[in-house]
Amino acid sequence: MTTYRIEKDTMGEVQVPADKYWAAQTERSRNNFKIGPEASMPHEIIEAFGYLKKAAAYANHDLGVLPVEKRDLIAQACDEILAHKLDDQFPLVIWQTGSGTQSNMNLNEVIANRAHVLHGGKLGEKSYIHPNDDVNKSQSSNDTYPTAMHIAAYKKVVEHTIPAVERLQKTLAKKAEEFKDVVKIGRTHLMDATPLTLGQEFSGYAAQLSFGLKALKNTLPHLGQLALGGTAVGTGLNTPKGYDVIVAEYIAKFTALPFITAENKFEALATHDAVVETHGALKQLAMSLFKIAQDIRLLASGPRSGIGEILIPENEPGSSIMPGKVNPTQCEALTMVCAQVLGNDTTISFAGSQGHFELNVFKPVMAYNFLQSAQLLADACISFDEHCASGIEPNHPRIKQLLEQSLMLVTALNTHIGYENAAKIAKTAHKNGTTLREEAINLGLVAAEDFDKWVRPEDMVGSLK
Amino acid sequence: MTTYRIEKDTMGEVQVPADKYWAAQTERSRNNFKIGPEASMPHEIIEAFGYLKKAAAYANHDLGVLPVEKRDLIAQACDEILAHKLDDQFPLVIWQTGSGTQSNMNLNEVIANRAHVLHGGKLGEKSYIHPNDDVNKSQSSNDTYPTAMHIAAYKKVVEHTIPAVERLQKTLAKKAEEFKDVVKIGRTHLMDATPLTLGQEFSGYAAQLSFGLKALKNTLPHLGQLALGGTAVGTGLNTPKGYDVIVAEYIAKFTALPFITAENKFEALATHDAVVETHGALKQLAMSLFKIAQDIRLLASGPRSGIGEILIPENEPGSSIMPGKVNPTQCEALTMVCAQVLGNDTTISFAGSQGHFELNVFKPVMAYNFLQSAQLLADACISFDEHCASGIEPNHPRIKQLLEQSLMLVTALNTHIGYENAAKIAKTAHKNGTTLREEAINLGLVAAEDFDKWVRPEDMVGSLK
Amino acid sequence: MTTYRIEKDTMGEVQVPADKYWAAQTERSRNNFKIGPEASMPHEIIEAFGYLKKAAAYANHDLGVLPVEKRDLIAQACDEILAHKLDDQFPLVIWQTGSGTQSNMNLNEVIANRAHVLHGGKLGEKSYIHPNDDVNKSQSSNDTYPTAMHIAAYKKVVEHTIPAVERLQKTLAKKAEEFKDVVKIGRTHLMDATPLTLGQEFSGYAAQLSFGLKALKNTLPHLGQLALGGTAVGTGLNTPKGYDVIVAEYIAKFTALPFITAENKFEALATHDAVVETHGALKQLAMSLFKIAQDIRLLASGPRSGIGEILIPENEPGSSIMPGKVNPTQCEALTMVCAQVLGNDTTISFAGSQGHFELNVFKPVMAYNFLQSAQLLADACISFDEHCASGIEPNHPRIKQLLEQSLMLVTALNTHIGYENAAKIAKTAHKNGTTLREEAINLGLVAAEDFDKWVRPEDMVGSLK
Amino acid sequence: MTTYRIEKDTMGEVQVPADKYWAAQTERSRNNFKIGPEASMPHEIIEAFGYLKKAAAYANHDLGVLPVEKRDLIAQACDEILAHKLDDQFPLVIWQTGSGTQSNMNLNEVIANRAHVLHGGKLGEKSYIHPNDDVNKSQSSNDTYPTAMHIAAYKKVVEHTIPAVERLQKTLAKKAEEFKDVVKIGRTHLMDATPLTLGQEFSGYAAQLSFGLKALKNTLPHLGQLALGGTAVGTGLNTPKGYDVIVAEYIAKFTALPFITAENKFEALATHDAVVETHGALKQLAMSLFKIAQDIRLLASGPRSGIGEILIPENEPGSSIMPGKVNPTQCEALTMVCAQVLGNDTTISFAGSQGHFELNVFKPVMAYNFLQSAQLLADACISFDEHCASGIEPNHPRIKQLLEQSLMLVTALNTHIGYENAAKIAKTAHKNGTTLREEAINLGLVAAEDFDKWVRPEDMVGSLK
Repeated sequence: MTTYRIEKDTMGEVQVPADKYWAAQTERSRNNFKIGPEASMPHEIIEAFGYLKKAAAYANHDLGVLPVEKRDLIAQACDEILAHKLDDQFPLVIWQTGSGTQSNMNLNEVIANRAHVLHGGKLGEKSYIHPNDDVNKSQSSNDTYPTAMHIAAYKKVVEHTIPAVERLQKTLAKKAEEFKDVVKIGRTHLMDATPLTLGQEFSGYAAQLSFGLKALKNTLPHLGQLALGGTAVGTGLNTPKGYDVIVAEYIAKFTALPFITAENKFEALATHDAVVETHGALKQLAMSLFKIAQDIRLLASGPRSGIGEILIPENEPGSSIMPGKVNPTQCEALTMVCAQVLGNDTTISFAGSQGHFELNVFKPVMAYNFLQSAQLLADACISFDEHCASGIEPNHPRIKQLLEQSLMLVTALNTHIGYENAAKIAKTAHKNGTTLREEAINLGLVAAEDFDKWVRPEDMVGSLK
Repeated sequence: MTTYRIEKDTMGEVQVPADKYWAAQTERSRNNFKIGPEASMPHEIIEAFGYLKKAAAYANHDLGVLPVEKRDLIAQACDEILAHKLDDQFPLVIWQTGSGTQSNMNLNEVIANRAHVLHGGKLGEKSYIHPNDDVNKSQSSNDTYPTAMHIAAYKKVVEHTIPAVERLQKTLAKKAEEFKDVVKIGRTHLMDATPLTLGQEFSGYAAQLSFGLKALKNTLPHLGQLALGGTAVGTGLNTPKGYDVIVAEYIAKFTALPFITAENKFEALATHDAVVETHGALKQLAMSLFKIAQDIRLLASGPRSGIGEILIPENEPGSSIMPGKVNPTQCEALTMVCAQVLGNDTTISFAGSQGHFELNVFKPVMAYNFLQSAQLLADACISFDEHCASGIEPNHPRIKQLLEQSLMLVTALNTHIGYENAAKIAKTAHKNGTTLREEAINLGLVAAEDFDKWVRPEDMVGSLK
Repeated sequence: MTTYRIEKDTMGEVQVPADKYWAAQTERSRNNFKIGPEASMPHEIIEAFGYLKKAAAYANHDLGVLPVEKRDLIAQACDEILAHKLDDQFPLVIWQTGSGTQSNMNLNEVIANRAHVLHGGKLGEKSYIHPNDDVNKSQSSNDTYPTAMHIAAYKKVVEHTIPAVERLQKTLAKKAEEFKDVVKIGRTHLMDATPLTLGQEFSGYAAQLSFGLKALKNTLPHLGQLALGGTAVGTGLNTPKGYDVIVAEYIAKFTALPFITAENKFEALATHDAVVETHGALKQLAMSLFKIAQDIRLLASGPRSGIGEILIPENEPGSSIMPGKVNPTQCEALTMVCAQVLGNDTTISFAGSQGHFELNVFKPVMAYNFLQSAQLLADACISFDEHCASGIEPNHPRIKQLLEQSLMLVTALNTHIGYENAAKIAKTAHKNGTTLREEAINLGLVAAEDFDKWVRPEDMVGSLK
Repeated sequence: MTTYRIEKDTMGEVQVPADKYWAAQTERSRNNFKIGPEASMPHEIIEAFGYLKKAAAYANHDLGVLPVEKRDLIAQACDEILAHKLDDQFPLVIWQTGSGTQSNMNLNEVIANRAHVLHGGKLGEKSYIHPNDDVNKSQSSNDTYPTAMHIAAYKKVVEHTIPAVERLQKTLAKKAEEFKDVVKIGRTHLMDATPLTLGQEFSGYAAQLSFGLKALKNTLPHLGQLALGGTAVGTGLNTPKGYDVIVAEYIAKFTALPFITAENKFEALATHDAVVETHGALKQLAMSLFKIAQDIRLLASGPRSGIGEILIPENEPGSSIMPGKVNPTQCEALTMVCAQVLGNDTTISFAGSQGHFELNVFKPVMAYNFLQSAQLLADACISFDEHCASGIEPNHPRIKQLLEQSLMLVTALNTHIGYENAAKIAKTAHKNGTTLREEAINLGLVAAEDFDKWVRPEDMVGSLK
C-alpha cells in the first residue's frame, strides 16, 4: 500500500508518495497529464539535466551566489542521477507543458530533496536546499529545457549515431574493396544495363554514408550552442554577469563535449532550429539507408525466383520447409526505422515552426522524436552491420550466369562488326532466348574466339570508383 | 507597347493595362506579390468563381436585392468566363493574401467591367455594374474563396479523378480475370514463397483501388458543403434571409453537382477540414498506386536479369542497342505523381491546422495542392491505363520456368513422404542447384509419375479471390 | 542470477531464461534486434494475438483439425494473456522482421509452453502443445500479424479515441450553447472584424470534431476486415474450408466488435491501406484539434497584454511571482500530440506504399505509429476536456471592452448617416485613439441616444449557427 | 492549321509539327505522357542542359572525339537556348520517364536540328549533327539529367535564394539595431512575461536566418558535384579518358560556379542525396520564416483587439469601411510558401529514398520540387522584405501601454519590499484590474517616487543580444 506525505506549493497541498523525492509540482503534472505511458520523458533528457544542474551550481558558486556546501550537495545528487541511482524518480510524460517546465521542476524537486537527505535531513521537512532558489538558481524552465535538449541530442549523435553510421560505412567501403573485381550486370530502371563491379555498386553505398556523415557533422556547431543563461525570455534576467559563458564551460567540461553559450539567446529559446537542422541530416541519412537496405534485399532476393546475386547471413530459421529461404529481416528492421525517421522529421519541422514570441512550446515533442531517431538509427545501423552487411558475400555462379546471358554486352561488338550487325545478333538472341555468343556464331558474324576476346565485361566497367 | 488607363480604389490611382478588364485591386496584387510564375492561381478556381458569381446574382435577384438587368449582365460575363473567353484576365498568383481576397476582387473587377462593356459602356468610365456593390453583393472574400475551392475540388474529383481511377480499376479487375489460371511463384519478403495465380495478384491491385474509391467517395458529402452565405465571419452579415440555401441551390443547378449550404459557416470559413479530408483519401490512393506501379515494374524487370514474369507495352525506343529493353516509364511517371501527392498532403494538413479564430488564411495554397493532386492522379491513371496496364501480358515461359524450379513446392510432398524426407529433397536441390523433381527421383524417394501427380502448383493456389 | 534452459529450433540450440515461457525463436530475435528499448512491441498487439489465437483454436476445432483438449488449453493460455497475467513474456521490439513473424512466434511459443504447463507439464520438456502445429495451425505470420494489427487498431479507435473525441465534442457543443449570447469581436487575418458570439465561435470547434468523427467512422468497415485465412500469400493454403469466415466470427464474438473476413486476402496481406485510411482520419482530427487548441490559447492569452477573452482553469502554479499567469499547458500538450500524429501519418503512408508482391513488410512500424496516435489523441482529448475545455469561462469585462472599442461597428451607421460620414467617424476615432461613440457625438453626426440605438453588436451576429 | 513533317526513330515514323526543331522521341513523349499541363519541365533544367551540352561539346573536342565545326554549331545552338530564343521547343512534362531521358532527347533533338539549320540545312533532312552521336556524345540520360538538376539547383540557390534571404536577414538585423531601446513586454506560452526590447526580439529573427544561411551554404559542396562522365551506370563507359574532370571544368567556366566532377559516380546516378541535403536546409529556412512571419502578424494584430505593438505597411485597401485594417498579407503569402516547402521536402525525401541499383528514377519530380521551393522562398523573401519587413515600425504608445500595465514588473520590487509584499501588490492589481503603481501606493507599501525609481523595465532587459 502506497503511503503519502503532504507537499505544498503556491496552490496548496498535494499528496505525494512518501518514498519519492519529487514534490508538489511533479505530482500535479502526473495528475494533470495522463497522456500515453507514464515516465515517457526520455531518460537522456533527465541525464542532461543532471549535467546542467551540476554545472549551474558550480557557475553560481564561482560567481558568488551559491555557497560551496550547497554546490556540493547539489552536485552529489546530480552525480547520483548520472549514475542511474534515481531512475524511478522521474515519472512525467512528454505530453506536458510545451516548455518542459514540469520536468525542470521534477529535477529541481528531486535534487533538492535528495540533497536535503544527503545533508542528513528527512523527506517532508523544510528542505535545506530549495528547489527554486538553489537548484534552479540563475535558471528558468525556458532556458534549461532547451539546454538539456541540446546536451542530450548532441551526446546521442556523437556517442551513438555517428559511430554506428561510421561502422557501417567502413563495412560497406571494405566490401567495395573486396568486391572490386566481381563484374556483374548493371540495372537501370530495374532493367538490364551495362556491367559494373559489385565493388562499384557498394562504393556508391559507402559514398552515401560518407556524404551523410559530413552533412550531419556540419550541423553540430549549431546544436552545440546552449540557451542556458537566457532565463525567462532571453535577456538573462536574474543571472550574475558572465554566468552564461561559465555555465556552458562547466557543461562542456562535465560532458567532455564542445558546448558553448548561444550567440543569441532569443533564437535559442524561441526557436529550436538547431534541432530541426540536425534532424534534417538524420533524415537524409535515413533516406540513404533506405536505398542501401532496399538494394541489398533486392540483390539477395530469391533464392530461385529473384535476383540472388548476393548471399546474406542466415540469422533465424526462414522456414522449416524451405532451405535457403533467408528473409532479409535486418533490411526490414532498418527500412522500418527509416520510415519512422521520415515521419519524425515532419513532426520536428512542424513543431519547430510553431514558436510564438519568446518561446517555442513544442520542446518535449521535439526532444522525444529527435532522440528516438538518433537512437534507432544508431541501433539499426549496428544491427544491420553485425547481422547483415559484414556477412554479405557475392553469389558468384549467379552473378556469372546473369552476366553471361545479358544482351547488353553486345555493345562491345559495335566497333568490330558495326552497329547494324551487332543489333541483329542481339535481336535474334532476344527472340530466341539464346545467348549473344550462340547467335553471333550461328549468324556467322563473329568467330567464337573473336567473341571471347571482344566481349569481355571486365573491360566495360571503367576505372571510375 | 502597352498602354495604360487609370483606375482608382480607396488608396488612390493605379495604372492598369488599357485592354484588360481588371482594375486597381488586381493590379496592386500583381505588383505586390511577384512570387513564382504569374497567373498561377488555378484556372479551376477562376471557373468556380464563374459559377459562384452567377449563382449569387440569381439568388440576390430572387431575394429582391439585385435588379434583373444587372443579374443578366453579371451572368453573361460569368458565362464568358466559363466559355474560356476571358482566360487572359486573371493574372494573379497563389502566393497572395491567404484569404484569396485579391482573386475574389480580380473576379469582381473583371465581371463588373466586362458587364459594363456588354451593357454598351467603355472601360475606364464609371461602371454600370459595381464590382463590390453588385458583383460581390451578399458576399465576402472569406466565404467566396472557400466556396470556389470546394466547387473546383469537387468537380475535379468527380469529373476527373474518380473516372480515371475507376477506369484503371476496371482494367486491373479485367486482368485479374484474364490471368486467373496463370499459376506463378509467390513472393514474400521478396523471397520465393508458395504459388498463387497472376490473377490473384492483380485482384489485390483491383481491390486496393476499389477500397480507395470508396474512401474517396465517403469524403464527398463534407466537400459538398459550401461556405457561401457566411460572409465576413460566418454570421451572414449583409445577406438577405434565406440567401445561403438558395445560392447553394443555384450553384448545384449550374454545376449539376449536389452542393448544399454548409451546416456550420464558422467551421466552413475558419477551417478547411473538408479539403484535408478529401485529400487524405487522394493520398491513400496515391500510396496504393505506388505499390501497384512498383510491383508492375518489378514483375516486368529484366529482360534477362530480373523477374520478367510480365510483358508491358513498348512505347518508346528503350535503347538503340538492346532489343527488349523496355523501360517501365509509365510506372515511373505514376510513382513520381504518388510522391508528389504525399508531399501535397503534408502541405495541406499543415496549412489546414493553421487557421486563427474566424479565418484560415492558407486557402490558395490548399486549393493549389489539392487541384494538382487530383489532376495528376487522374491524368497519370489514364496514361498508365492506356499505355501500360491495359497491355500487360503474362510472360508464360518465364512464369513456368520460375515456378518449376522453385523449392517451395516441396510442401506438397509432406503428406505423402513425410516432412523429413521432403526437407531432404529440398535441401539437396538447393545445395546442388537442381530441381525438386530431379532430386526426388535421384534420392529414390518419389517416382517420377508420383511427383508429377503430387506436386501440382495449381492445386496450391486455393479458391480465395 | 539468471538461469537458463536450452531450447532448440531448426538452426540449433539457444539459451533461454529458465523462467520464461518463450523459446528459441523469440530468443534469437531478442539477440538479433537490439534496436531501441526492449519490449517495444505494443501490448495492444499482444492482446489482439490473444483473441486471434483463441479464435483460431476454436475455428480449427470446429473444422475438425484440433482436438477439444488442445483447443481449451490454448484458450486458457490466451485468456491469461488477456488478463495481463503474462505481460513479462513478450520482450520483442517493433524493429524486427517487417512481417512481425517473430512476434507471432513469441505468441506461439508462450501459449504453447504455458498450455503445456497448464496441462501439468514442465518447461523444457517436449511440449504437449506445439507452437507451430497447434497454436499456429491454419495460420501464417503473414496473415496473423495484420489481423492482430486490425484488431488492436479497431479496438483502440472505438474504445478509446472515438469516446474521447465525442466527450470533447460534447463539451464544446455545450459551451457553444452556454456562450450563445456572448457577443464579441470577430477576427479575420488576426485583425479585428465584425462581431459574432462566443457561442458561434465554439460551434465551429464542435462542428470540426463532428465532421472528424464522421470521417473516422467512415473508415471502420475497411479496418474491420481481417486477413486471417489468407496464410502465407493470400491463397489460404493449409486452411480447412470455411475457416476464414468462421475464425473472423469467433474474433468478432470474443472482442464484441463487428469484424469480418477480408473480401480480398491478397490486398489484406500485401497492403495495409486500411491502416493508412483510418490513420488519415486520425490525422484530420489532429489538424482540427490543433486549430481548436491554438485558438483557445490565443483567446486566453494575457492576462494584460494578450487577448484575454476567455478564462481557462488554473491547474498548476504559473509563477510564484505573477498572479494570473495561467499557462495554457493543456493546449500545449494537445498541440504537441497533434504534431506527433502528423508525423506518424507520414511514416504510415510511406510504409504503406512499400509493399512488394504478396507482402508488405512494414507491419510493426505501422502498428506502432497507429496505436500511438490513437492512444495519444484519446488521452489528450480527455485531459484537455477535463482540465481545460470544460472549465472555460468568458471574461465578460474584457470581451465587452474589446467589443465597445472596436471600429468595425461603424458599419451599422452606413444606412443612417451614409458611408462618407461613417468613414469620417471611424477615421477620426482611429487617429485619436477614441471610440466611435465619442467621435460620432463630437463630430455632431449622431446623437448619443441614436448611437446607442443604432450601433448594437448583438444585431450584427445573425442567426447562423 | 498545324502542318507536320515525318521523323523517324528505331520504332518507326512519327508526325512532328513542321516548324518545331524537336523530333521523334520528343513527340512520342508528348503523346505518351499527357499528365498535367504541357511544358511543365522547369525551364531552369532546359537552361542547365544548355550549359551541359555546350560543355560536353568542348570536352569532346578537346579529347579529340568531336570536330571543331560540330563543337561550334552545337555551342551556337546552346547559346540560343541560354538566350531564351528557343523557349517554345521544350514541350515535355515532369511526369515522364523518371530518368529524364525524354527531356535529354528533347534537348539532343532540338540542338541537333537547330545546329543543322544554322549550318545551312533544312528541317526534315538527314541532319549534319546527330542528336545521339554528336550532341549526346560521351553522355547518357542517366548522367546528364542529374547534372542538369545540380546545375539548375545550385544556380537557383546561389543566385536567387541566398541573396533574397540575406537581404531579409539584413533588414531584420537593421530593425534589431533600430529597435534596440524599445522596451516591451515579453511573452512566453503567449502569456505576459518579463520585458525585453523589440530589438532583442528582432535579433532572434535575424539570428534564425543567419543560422539557416550557414546551414544552406554547408550543403553546397555536395550539390556542386556533377554526375557527368558516369554515363549509363556510373562506370564512364564510352567516355574518353579524363572527360569527367574536363567537362565539369567547362561547366564551371560557363556558369561561373564552382562545379567539380563527382567523387563517386555511382552515388551520383543512383541517389540524389545532395538534392535531399540542400532541400533539407531550404526546409529549415522555411520553418524559421514561418515563425518570423507568424510573430510579425501577431505583433501587428488589431488595431484595437489584438496586440498591435508594431505597424506594418499598408499595401492594399484593407476595407473600405474600417480605417486601420491592414491585413498582414505578406505574412500570409510567406507562410503559405513555407507550408509548400515543408510538403516539397516530404516529396523530395520520399523520392530520394526510392532509387534501385544504378539509377534513381524520380529525378524530374525532385528537380521540380526543389526549384519550386528555392524560387518561392527567394521571391517571397524579397516580397516580404520590400512590402513588409523594411517598413515595420514600433507602435510606441501601444508598447508603452502594455508595458506599464503589466503585472510582471513586480519582480523588480522583490529586493526592496520582499516577495510577500510584492505578491500582495500584484494580486491586488490583478483582482482590481489596476496597475502595480496604483496598488503599491494605495497599499502604502511603496512611495510613488520609489516606485518610479525601482520599477524600470529598461533595467530588466539585460545586455544579452
